[in-house]
Parts: sequence; C-alpha cells; structure tokens
Amino acid sequence: MLDYKLLAALAAVVEQGGFERAANALGLSQSAVSQRVKLLEARVGQPVLVRAAPPTPTDLGRRLLNHVQQVRLLERDLQAQVPELEGARPERLRVAINADSLATWWAEAVKDFCHQHNVLLELVIEDQEVGLKRMRAGEVAGCICAAEHPVAGAQGLLLGAMRYRALASPAYMAHYFAGGPSVSTLAQAPAIVFGVDDQLQHRYLDALGVKGDFAYHLCPSSEGFVRFLQSGLGWGLVPELQVEGPLSRGELVELFPTRFIDVPLYWHYWRNGGTLLAELTRHLRRAALKVLVPL
Amino acid sequence: MLDYKLLAALAAVVEQGGFERAANALGLSQSAVSQRVKLLEARVGQPVLVRAAPPTPTDLGRRLLNHVQQVRLLERDLQAQVPELEGARPERLRVAINADSLATWWAEAVKDFCHQHNVLLELVIEDQEVGLKRMRAGEVAGCICAAEHPVAGAQGLLLGAMRYRALASPAYMAHYFAGGPSVSTLAQAPAIVFGVDDQLQHRYLDALGVKGDFAYHLCPSSEGFVRFLQSGLGWGLVPELQVEGPLSRGELVELFPTRFIDVPLYWHYWRNGGTLLAELTRHLRRAALKVLVPL
Repeated sequence: MLDYKLLAALAAVVEQGGFERAANALGLSQSAVSQRVKLLEARVGQPVLVRAAPPTPTDLGRRLLNHVQQVRLLERDLQAQVPELEGARPERLRVAINADSLATWWAEAVKDFCHQHNVLLELVIEDQEVGLKRMRAGEVAGCICAAEHPVAGAQGLLLGAMRYRALASPAYMAHYFAGGPSVSTLAQAPAIVFGVDDQLQHRYLDALGVKGDFAYHLCPSSEGFVRFLQSGLGWGLVPELQVEGPLSRGELVELFPTRFIDVPLYWHYWRNGGTLLAELTRHLRRAALKVLVPL
Repeated sequence: MLDYKLLAALAAVVEQGGFERAANALGLSQSAVSQRVKLLEARVGQPVLVRAAPPTPTDLGRRLLNHVQQVRLLERDLQAQVPELEGARPERLRVAINADSLATWWAEAVKDFCHQHNVLLELVIEDQEVGLKRMRAGEVAGCICAAEHPVAGAQGLLLGAMRYRALASPAYMAHYFAGGPSVSTLAQAPAIVFGVDDQLQHRYLDALGVKGDFAYHLCPSSEGFVRFLQSGLGWGLVPELQVEGPLSRGELVELFPTRFIDVPLYWHYWRNGGTLLAELTRHLRRAALKVLVPL
C-alpha cells in the first residue's frame, strides 16, 4: 500500500499553502514535512510539488491528492462503523463554491448537516470550470458551480437556478436613464462587473442589442457589489435572493422588470465519496427546492 | 523614450489575465499583442512575462508595469490641462483593497470621486502585504490594507481603524455557551475564519488565554461570513460597520461586549501619482473620519 504519512504531508502543504503552515497543522517540524515530501518524490521518481509561494502540485501530485481526498471520505465511513478507530474529531470537508451561493443560500442549507455530522467546512470561492479543475486535482471534495459536465468519477446534480435581476439605485436611474433605459443610454452608463469571468452584464446587454464595449467597475465582492449598486456607482445583475430587502424598500429598482437571467447551479460530488457526501447531497437538494428557481 | 505601445501590450496581458483578453481590450489581434510583447523582450534582452495561465510578469516585467502605472496617472493630469489630447474616456484605476472594506464603507466613500472625475474602478481583493506587493509590482495604483510600511516611492496614510466584534447567533450562544463563554467552552465551539491569513479569531482566543488549536469553518466571503454567523454555524469577528442591522435586531449577539479588536487601515498611494490619486486620497480621508474609529 501507499505510505499515507507521506501523502498526508503533501496534502497538508497544498491545503495550507506552505510548509510552515502544514507543519503547524500536522504538529510536526517543518523539516519533517519537507523530508516526507522529498521521500514521496524519491518513491515516485518525480517531483510532486512546484516549490513556489504558495506551493502547487505537479500533475502527478494532483493525481495523488485526488486519491487522498477520496480515501479520506471512505475512512470517514469506516470510522462510523468502527468508532473505536478514532475519537470524534470534527471532519474537515473542502468544497469549491461560486461567490454568490456562498453570499446567499449556502449557510442555511448546510447548517443542519454540519451540526448532525460534526463537520467543519473549508470553502474555496471558484466559479465555472475552475471549481471543477480543483475537484479533478483532488483539492476539494465537491463543487457548486454553473458548469454542467462532471469530472471523471464524479456526478453532477442540477440543483436549480439562481435568478439574477438587473438593478440600480433610483438616483442612478434618474441620472443615466431619465427617459428609461435604452440601447443608446445603456452603452454609456457605467455597469458593475464582479470579475473578468463574469459575463452576465455582457449577456444582458447583448440580448438587448447593445453591441461592443461598455463602461464598468470591477468589484470582486458580493456584498461590495450590492453596496456599489446602492451608492449609485453603476447598474449590475444580482441574485434576487441577495437583495430582497433593498428591493422591497425601493433602495434598488429594476432596469427592465421582465428581463432576468437564470443561472443553473450544479452540485458535483464523487460517486464513491461515501455517506458523508451523500448526506450533504441530500441536504443541498432539499434546500435548493426551497430557495432556487426550478429548471 | 520607451516604446509605450509595447508596454501597453504587456500591461494589458497582465491586467486582463491572458493574451486573448488583452487583444480584445486593445482592439488588436492576439498575434499582434504577442508580437509586441516579444519585441519588448527583444529590446530589454530578457523575458518580461512567464507564459502560464494566467501570465505573470517577471521581475523586470514588474518594474516595467510599475512604471506604466505611474505614467498613466501623470498622463491623466496632462489630459486635464490639454483636453484636446483625447476624448473624455473614463479613466480606469486599479486599487487593491481588503475584503471587509469593500464589503462595507468603500462604495459610499468613492462614489462622488468616481462621478466627479469620470473614473471606473478595478478592484482587487488582497489583504496585508500582498496588496503592497501588487503595488510594488505596478499592478495597482493604490492599496487599502492593514500593513503600515509603504513601498518605495509611495506614501502610507493612516485612515483609522475598523472595529471587529466577536458575534454569534442567540441559538449558537444557547447551545455552546449556556453558562456564558469561557476558556474551556471557547476551545470546543466552532469558530468561523475568513481564510488562512485571517488571524483575528486566533488573536481573540489568545487574549482570553485559550491556547492551541480550535475548531473552525473557513468561509472566504464577507457576506457568507455573516450568513454563517446568523445560521449558527460558528462565532467570529466581524466589522461593526457590517452588522449594524443584525446587532440592533438581536439576530447576532456579542460574546464579550467589552472585548473588541481595532484593525488599523492604511491608504497607500504613489507620491508622484498626480492629481487623480491626490483627489481620491482627499475623498478617502473625509469618508474615513465618518466611518472608521480614530486611532
């Protein structure tokens, strides 16, 4: 069998983002961690880590980590059957998630799961293919994202959709769209975009026939995004779930009430991930029925 | 003089995170952008970019980008004096900022500045030394962070402090701290930590005499953090500014009302950054007086 002491050292270095932190997490000296990773490399005859800040796994390292992730989940099932094996330390579960889910429905959806199963979550914000890439790399046990196609060995479950509405403050509307928003005024009025991967505003304008460039602020924070809207810095697409209060109080208003974008959300998880992932899947499915838009 | 067409190509590749996006942003073909970067490398006799996904600047590349950043700011002043030079295209200003500032006071602080000077912001979330590293690398024009020492050529202005309070939901308090929080119960009760660099919870526990490890969820989203608190998943330190509503409604309560942590915030900007940065500095200073805690 593989030497899991060595694999655990590799996993800790990648998950903690460095040798010193890995040593702290494992309760070892830094040189012990370093020795273990070197020994692992000697055994497999190739580097498993790129020594940068932070260290990143090589292709081979990624395959090893992917394996570690799944072994951990299976171990957890074993512990449930043979409780003598180890004390009831809380389990850590790493999940990649899109920023807007984390900012809205996720906490309520997982709270009972975390309490019942004594689980601590380590969340990583990634959207689209990047979350899946982390899953393939064995860095996370599951992934919430808009991408449909699961990675090999995993399952992708459609949870529903988040409905995004195009909003702005009343002062912004009066300033930029005095006669109502139109193709010509929309091209000139500053928008807010979450990050370079956020194409929602582009899609919205495209559907309205606004072609080419438009002016926008880049604001990579879910809460900051809403504050930008409320301060009248721009218009932008936000999950309905996130702005129920400001919408009902009239602090934010819709550009075109009948135009919205539904973004599908998938839960990707290992098919052989054990009962813990199956339980989490059950909780997510139930929560999604309540908060997401059915597709 | 340097060939700024080539430098602009380098800047676009780094800022946009790739050759294809840089080409779109510059309105050039991808091969033209690639040619320009290669020509720049031929002139300086060294690589300026590491061709990875995303491409990152080499040390020399960083020094060139740093220079580009400052030239852009000076050009802007010139345009203000000689308006014939170019149309009134909005200026893009890249700023590194800590997540909690972006989630709270930033939008209101900069809205008048953005309107008056026709500025679009590109914000990058980084805390501590990383934001300053980006400044040194010429990737951003300014930086809001808790680190005091400015990079060479820049100025660090103390804006004030954000006050963090340790909060949890009433249900969480009843479950974990029925007899009030204590050294022994705090070590067992799950906390929430923003990311591996977030040491606030560690400091808080340390000051209370709770030594060693403690259980925590990792939740790298300002809004998600508050949702985790409200769902009773853990306790954690949050900026007072962010939770005025939930605190006043009793949805979140304090662990120890007299214990808080004040985190200083500095605004770092180039000393020779022209009037635009000076104006932004004036707006930030004025806003900080209203919302931050004086130090």
